[in-house]
Amino acid sequence: MSLWNLSRRSQAMQSSAIRELLKLCERPGMLSMAGGLPAAESFPAEALRSVADRVLREQPAAALQYGASEGLAGLREWVAAHLRSQGMTTVSAAQVLITSGSQQGLDLLGKVLAEQGAPLAVEAPSYLGALQAFTPYGPRFVPIACDDDGPLPDDLLTLPQRAPGCRFAYLLPNFQNPTGRLMPEARRQGIVAAAQQIGLPLVEDNPYGELWYDAPPPAPLAARWPEGTVYLGSFSKVLAPGLRLGYLVAPPALFERLLQAKQASDLHSSSLAQHLVLALLQKDVLTHQLPALRARYRVSRDAMQAALQRELGGLGDSPEGCRWATPQGGMFFWLTLPAGLDAQRLLEQALAASIAFVPGAEFFVTGTAGPAERRTVRLSFVTLSPAQIDEAVRRLGTVLRAALAAQGRGPLEGALGGRTESRHATPELS
Amino acid sequence: MSLWNLSRRSQAMQSSAIRELLKLCERPGMLSMAGGLPAAESFPAEALRSVADRVLREQPAAALQYGASEGLAGLREWVAAHLRSQGMTTVSAAQVLITSGSQQGLDLLGKVLAEQGAPLAVEAPSYLGALQAFTPYGPRFVPIACDDDGPLPDDLLTLPQRAPGCRFAYLLPNFQNPTGRLMPEARRQGIVAAAQQIGLPLVEDNPYGELWYDAPPPAPLAARWPEGTVYLGSFSKVLAPGLRLGYLVAPPALFERLLQAKQASDLHSSSLAQHLVLALLQKDVLTHQLPALRARYRVSRDAMQAALQRELGGLGDSPEGCRWATPQGGMFFWLTLPAGLDAQRLLEQALAASIAFVPGAEFFVTGTAGPAERRTVRLSFVTLSPAQIDEAVRRLGTVLRAALAAQGRGPLEGALGGRTESRHATPELS
Repeated sequence: MSLWNLSRRSQAMQSSAIRELLKLCERPGMLSMAGGLPAAESFPAEALRSVADRVLREQPAAALQYGASEGLAGLREWVAAHLRSQGMTTVSAAQVLITSGSQQGLDLLGKVLAEQGAPLAVEAPSYLGALQAFTPYGPRFVPIACDDDGPLPDDLLTLPQRAPGCRFAYLLPNFQNPTGRLMPEARRQGIVAAAQQIGLPLVEDNPYGELWYDAPPPAPLAARWPEGTVYLGSFSKVLAPGLRLGYLVAPPALFERLLQAKQASDLHSSSLAQHLVLALLQKDVLTHQLPALRARYRVSRDAMQAALQRELGGLGDSPEGCRWATPQGGMFFWLTLPAGLDAQRLLEQALAASIAFVPGAEFFVTGTAGPAERRTVRLSFVTLSPAQIDEAVRRLGTVLRAALAAQGRGPLEGALGGRTESRHATPELS
Repeated sequence: MSLWNLSRRSQAMQSSAIRELLKLCERPGMLSMAGGLPAAESFPAEALRSVADRVLREQPAAALQYGASEGLAGLREWVAAHLRSQGMTTVSAAQVLITSGSQQGLDLLGKVLAEQGAPLAVEAPSYLGALQAFTPYGPRFVPIACDDDGPLPDDLLTLPQRAPGCRFAYLLPNFQNPTGRLMPEARRQGIVAAAQQIGLPLVEDNPYGELWYDAPPPAPLAARWPEGTVYLGSFSKVLAPGLRLGYLVAPPALFERLLQAKQASDLHSSSLAQHLVLALLQKDVLTHQLPALRARYRVSRDAMQAALQRELGGLGDSPEGCRWATPQGGMFFWLTLPAGLDAQRLLEQALAASIAFVPGAEFFVTGTAGPAERRTVRLSFVTLSPAQIDEAVRRLGTVLRAALAAQGRGPLEGALGGRTESRHATPELS
């Protein structure tokens, strides 16, 4: 590469293990619990076909021409009104930036706020795509200690000492990727109070908030501290990811900078996709779509919970056995394997058995995954059917039993059993 | 902004004058020659409506699901085959990265190759969007001296001395934005030979190459030096910009890094847009679309040429009078106003007369536009109808005559007349 001299930021980028995995997952017969791919059967394809016909007949010039970098005015209005109804009562359309998926929102935030060597605080573990989006901008990632309710306010308060100049804390309060955990009301209050006390801005990523299966989540962090929080949302999980549309809401002073970064990055997001999504929303498609999605994914979640209990419940002795919790929403179970196992090494046997998952260590900042973190696994329940989930988890049990047997430790059937904790099973990670 | 601590790269970004202008251009009655907006009547809306119906009926899951960061395999194959037919005989689909408009390709190149303080060589003037895309990555822009045929090989050869460590030269050989000039065959050979001699990689941006009105342009630079050139193309000018689809072709060693940057930036480009464009291409829509576009824009170009000759031909005495050339393709005339005028100051009067253009100084690296550059103006001829072009140029003539009169210098009717040079009228800028 002597001709092409790479930037330092490029040298920091790494290929995604998830991406390499997803390639393997295309093999026939593979039952993948790896990617967070929404169920394709849930996409509102017929409604889209109908609005595409209308939009391309009635507004072809607007839907196919260059558009404003901010996004389509009507769509920004819809997002603002929607968020006001979710408790973010002060949001105006002028604060809404339409992005090419919420992944782009993360990239823009990295571009505008991250600095070479300056700390960024992230949950441990956190969304891998966010770590990848921020990495080129050279931050020093600082993990925030978490428990089953999410990041610990007391640990946030130590950031001025251990990470002076920290630019923001990146948080996923609703059904976090990868752990599936929900930040309860009291913890939200504690986190916002701590952030305000130390003057640390928050970036709140909420792709999964609408996918609740038991009860709606508490109000967003951004509702409690609008001037100190950037909020990210997405149409990927509630309509379809292939449209690549998301949005962010930023305080006015920051909005202009993010808008400039957006313009420099891709001028604007697809005019056609924005017109289609606005037409869907105006037809009130979400009113049918959301309850149907929740019902579908609730069944899948329950199927995975039952399969895990059946196949892994007796595997290893607690607290050294398999542990997980039933997520209240989102797309993922977070599993802790019996002591001594390494999820990354198990993945090879899993792929040989035609199943796939993501080793939990992927979601930790490089170099921070110890033996406890290397026992973790993320399982998606939204792509496979309940019958496929049964079969995939059955194969996972076979793989785990073989690995334990190879260690000379058979399953301790019936001993203390697998522990399924009340709400969350995220191991305490720091 | 004490709470939100901006990155240095964000502080380097500036709001685009073009963007602010385009807002004014939405006023009713405005005849804008500012933006390079393709004629909306030319969009293949009916063909898109037909393929949208089919794609959403036959392949809804694939068209709406997450996709590969590289892009849709069939679309990458199409691009590779198309470019091989254009003389880039060694291109394979594995080198093609589908981007969210070619603007995103520029951002990815900045991310992967530009470095804080390291030189990037650009034509003077150059595409404003490229300067904006690269700016956040902190390069030191180094202008390359140009004549009517484009950048000068001899000036390129001085880069190792005056800009050591230069990362690449960014060039637009076909109907350059903003000057409209075409780099002839001999100059292409000279530029590639010079670049090879000093080991300077090239980034070749070709959004306008298909929009030729007299004869097809010579083979791309990338055809002559594949391992040393990244090539950027776009569907924005030949199909519709609102789809936000472009592509880049990179040597294999660089491709993987650009792909990682793409994944971090927005995961992938719209699956739906990619399926729609591939379906259009497979229906051979371009076979009809391209000749129709060329015919339409040729008429518009000829209308602007005639109007300029009629309205500005007698304005000021050569070489101090109005100068321009008839572009052989693309979207723009590049006008040099009579000596003493300042295009940025004239814009206010123009807007008052309900016409708009972009002052040429916008396209020069900050701080490099002297009095000669401040006399330049970019006029787009692709958005307005020929009748509107007539009227817009008539108003421009009125504005210019008033400005000259205010200077105490009336038009020297018929003196030496406006000079319309043979092919190009780019003033020599360095």
